Amino acid sequence: MKKFGSLEAGGTKFVCAVGNGPDNFVKEIFPTKSPEETINKAIEFFKFHNRDCSLKAIGIGTFGPINLAKESETFGCLTTTPKVNWENTNMFTPFKNAFEIPVSIDTDVNTAALGEYTWGSAKDLNNFIYLTIGTGIGGGGIINGSFLQGDQYPEMGHIFLPKIKGDNFEGSCPYHDDMCFEGLASGTSIGLRCGLNASEIIESAQVWERVAEYISLALVNYIYISAPQKILIGGGVMKQTHLFAKIRNNVLKHLNGYNHSSINQKNISDYICPPDLGENSAILGGFALAKKAYSTNGSSN
Amino acid sequence: MKKFGSLEAGGTKFVCAVGNGPDNFVKEIFPTKSPEETINKAIEFFKFHNRDCSLKAIGIGTFGPINLAKESETFGCLTTTPKVNWENTNMFTPFKNAFEIPVSIDTDVNTAALGEYTWGSAKDLNNFIYLTIGTGIGGGGIINGSFLQGDQYPEMGHIFLPKIKGDNFEGSCPYHDDMCFEGLASGTSIGLRCGLNASEIIESAQVWERVAEYISLALVNYIYISAPQKILIGGGVMKQTHLFAKIRNNVLKHLNGYNHSSINQKNISDYICPPDLGENSAILGGFALAKKAYSTNGSSN
Repeated sequence: MKKFGSLEAGGTKFVCAVGNGPDNFVKEIFPTKSPEETINKAIEFFKFHNRDCSLKAIGIGTFGPINLAKESETFGCLTTTPKVNWENTNMFTPFKNAFEIPVSIDTDVNTAALGEYTWGSAKDLNNFIYLTIGTGIGGGGIINGSFLQGDQYPEMGHIFLPKIKGDNFEGSCPYHDDMCFEGLASGTSIGLRCGLNASEIIESAQVWERVAEYISLALVNYIYISAPQKILIGGGVMKQTHLFAKIRNNVLKHLNGYNHSSINQKNISDYICPPDLGENSAILGGFALAKKAYSTNGSSN
Repeated sequence: MKKFGSLEAGGTKFVCAVGNGPDNFVKEIFPTKSPEETINKAIEFFKFHNRDCSLKAIGIGTFGPINLAKESETFGCLTTTPKVNWENTNMFTPFKNAFEIPVSIDTDVNTAALGEYTWGSAKDLNNFIYLTIGTGIGGGGIINGSFLQGDQYPEMGHIFLPKIKGDNFEGSCPYHDDMCFEGLASGTSIGLRCGLNASEIIESAQVWERVAEYISLALVNYIYISAPQKILIGGGVMKQTHLFAKIRNNVLKHLNGYNHSSINQKNISDYICPPDLGENSAILGGFALAKKAYSTNGSSN
């Protein structure tokens, strides 16, 4: 069995893994510190597991925003990230230079979507969205059979939403304040709203009603714009699994019968759901990215 | 030269045409009355132009919402349209039964997008949106090289938007009141806001500031969700051409530098613009639909 490397580079933690699929991989998790220290630690992990030169390729799913225009001089560099010290960090070249194997990079959400498409909840779907709601909010997926990627990619976490009446929170998005989804319902905004981490807030807290409502408003917009066959929602905030029932009810209420994808009370639990692969969507997607890079560029090495 | 039929079926008017492209067609326009009377008038138009049996196929772009699931018994039937008396009207079978040639049907906006893709502003683009703002608001286009169509299709006019502070209009959407784009900025809503048709309202009226703002908020959402290379906006409301400058400024203000498609002050006039084919986008798209149906099904007839 061929062995691949996978890196899920997040703003809070880096997850490194080697293996080749859901039934065969090992992973290591460490906190995101300075760019140099964190990237070097990931490189060391892959070097350790490549002592026998058995790694065939590495796939990277990274936080962003990042420049993925292949012809650009700054390909693989983070751009306007709010993550302190990480602006302009090159997430690709250090890995490319450290190993003589193909390295492929994409957004964390597209990589997670690729994992679900290859091995999980979205297997064989022609049109789905993968959303992650954690520190920030990001979305990826497949529309019309192709990934939303290339030199342009979406920023689904930044769509503008109606503000709930009575919600006076000033928003946490550095670009859009309280105008956008991320500014209103990300883990960061929940923390600012309550002075607590999402995991510390009780289920009955009012904040969850509001967060569920903003998520449902965003989902309505995704449905009306791209008519997905399924919407997967992962990320730290969605560990509050009680949110799913609230979101599903609110989406049905807001669609109000006006849609073409036959979403109804009976099937909505299958339509809006957590990703099958759970926390491993992006790591497994990284293997799929790596395999693709290997079969395209590296199989003759 | 082969001759094709094209029908743009709208809630206000039907446009019928025969020809084969932008430089070679004749058209006739009549108001939308009862389903039977209006559809029969369109059939008579095509019969008149098919006296010599020269029509090869007919393409129909229709208002909706419509069932376009090919395997469905009610394929081609309008569903929950607010247009009085037109609910459940079959927009396909009367034409299919009246002629022994291929007939193809799609939404009005996808048909218009196909026209722009074949002969107009969106020629050869891999990813664009075509929006029409008239009595209602609809959107179509290409994402990842394929049309947004099939048994599910978008309803881009119904995305939920933030309400402008101080705007107390209660909305005109029968499904979403003042929550959605169409409820806030369609020709219908402009009429209700002012008691006048869009064409009768002076350029300096406050309503245009609001309409431009809602359009720009919707565009920001399309950009963040599907990262189009171009957004074309047609329809009766956009005959107020002064709206374009306002919309472009507002979109840039709201994106606030956070996007990946290099939209800026210099290129935005090329990015958000009227369709090249103007009022003929959908009629010409109907020819393209008909040609496709002919080459797929009818070229041996």
